Amino acid sequence: MNAIGIDVGGTNVKIGVVSKQGKVLKKEVIKVNSKEPGLSALKRIAKIINRFKKEYSLKGIGMGMPGILDLSKGELLYSSTTLNSWRHINLIDTLTKLTNLKVKISNDANVATLAESRFGKYKKANSLILLTLGTGVGGGIIVDKHLIEGNNGQGAELGHMSINHEGRKCGCGRVGCLEAYVSAVALEKDAYKAFKKKIDAKTVFSLYKKGNSTAKKVINDYIAYLGEGLLNYCIIFRPEVILLSGGVANAGNLLIKPLNGYLKKHQYGIKGTAKVIVDIASLKYDSGIIGAASLIL
Amino acid sequence: MNAIGIDVGGTNVKIGVVSKQGKVLKKEVIKVNSKEPGLSALKRIAKIINRFKKEYSLKGIGMGMPGILDLSKGELLYSSTTLNSWRHINLIDTLTKLTNLKVKISNDANVATLAESRFGKYKKANSLILLTLGTGVGGGIIVDKHLIEGNNGQGAELGHMSINHEGRKCGCGRVGCLEAYVSAVALEKDAYKAFKKKIDAKTVFSLYKKGNSTAKKVINDYIAYLGEGLLNYCIIFRPEVILLSGGVANAGNLLIKPLNGYLKKHQYGIKGTAKVIVDIASLKYDSGIIGAASLIL
Repeated sequence: MNAIGIDVGGTNVKIGVVSKQGKVLKKEVIKVNSKEPGLSALKRIAKIINRFKKEYSLKGIGMGMPGILDLSKGELLYSSTTLNSWRHINLIDTLTKLTNLKVKISNDANVATLAESRFGKYKKANSLILLTLGTGVGGGIIVDKHLIEGNNGQGAELGHMSINHEGRKCGCGRVGCLEAYVSAVALEKDAYKAFKKKIDAKTVFSLYKKGNSTAKKVINDYIAYLGEGLLNYCIIFRPEVILLSGGVANAGNLLIKPLNGYLKKHQYGIKGTAKVIVDIASLKYDSGIIGAASLIL
Repeated sequence: MNAIGIDVGGTNVKIGVVSKQGKVLKKEVIKVNSKEPGLSALKRIAKIINRFKKEYSLKGIGMGMPGILDLSKGELLYSSTTLNSWRHINLIDTLTKLTNLKVKISNDANVATLAESRFGKYKKANSLILLTLGTGVGGGIIVDKHLIEGNNGQGAELGHMSINHEGRKCGCGRVGCLEAYVSAVALEKDAYKAFKKKIDAKTVFSLYKKGNSTAKKVINDYIAYLGEGLLNYCIIFRPEVILLSGGVANAGNLLIKPLNGYLKKHQYGIKGTAKVIVDIASLKYDSGIIGAASLIL
């Protein structure tokens, strides 16, 4: 039996039919914008699903949403994207009525984590954490193969764990959030300060590779911030695997190698405890669709 | 069916028969010290259990241990107590052989959390975190009624999550661990600095109650440190309930009231998200035995 995976973004919504083996059998992409009422966009999505339904046997629909959800109401509570028009709609009830299929929703970082856990390189791991290092920092937690979503689906906001209660102010209102230190935006701000000019994350890593001393300082600081965040997750979860995704993770080994060095030096938190694998996430394309479908599969 | 609960401490080991309803039906306490080999102590414990076995139908044995365990080996990996002679013994195999009963072990803070989750005031909650504010700071995590123990049972070291990567040094080797700010020892150190004399946690709280301005400053700082730690747990887990136990928690409402005020002011991390109840742990006496037995019950 297959499932529909809907990967909702601020510009594109991807709708796919996903097999039990995690393969995308069919896919369509629609554009959305802040002017269109959420209900109208949902009707367009449902139309596509109802078309797919004639072709494939479907078990249900999984949807991954950016922002904070209220699972008890099936609603989008808060989103910093163009999706504000989707708020105050019971997304679960609405889609169920429009398609006659079972619907589950979760946060986009959660479903990406689910995709890695089900179909990624480390699918054998029982516990796994994914941290997305993009404009913001999000994440998902898998323990014993199950998503830890928290009360009303509002946990796993991994980027807003504070690593310094006397540190940087975060957009969320807290002080010292990991996001304020390790997002792509934070890295580029630190690079701007060090280089006295605008410079993107990719260029900083490439200068770091060439041995540029300013880039070295910026990246070493970044590794320490990220390392402290990961050590906290090790202390709390002692997961088998921590995966990194998002823009900064494109640095690949330039990020992973020194990061693993930092973690090893600090014994992953407490001496003698079980090792934690830290690597780059393995699924790239369509992981949002596959993860969303995994809510049902 | 009943189970044996063994609450292992550095001085006393309590062994009890616990009913399915969480009642201690029979109990014995033995003394232990660092000079006695672990195996000898285990034999004395097994003797008591084998006596209980004649009187009660037993499903198995649960044991709560202070320190860090290696569940893959059934061993105590590290303990700061007098129990070093218990290391390098497969506790599970040894007790199984001596009693012919199924044996499970876990960290002492984990089993105390399990006791609260099964038989405490908030037993209806699906997710619950316990934080013990004693000489050190430990904790346990329940999600969907299950203990989150981490790889090899080495997770949930909640006191060693750093809240300030530029902050106080912790005995574990990390910087800024919550334990370095909110243990009873840390509170008394801060009080010593403020009062310029030795003063215990209980007295600080009693002076705080009377409106003493120095005590107010010490406690307000303490509340902020603890608040930041709890906000991190809210961000990560969004649990239904967080419970506090241990020496400092004896302050009761003097601790809980301002702490809830601090958390409310900071919206439990992110605006609009589900409320988290913060309260004092409800089980006092025998919670170690009851929790240990809960590993089996």
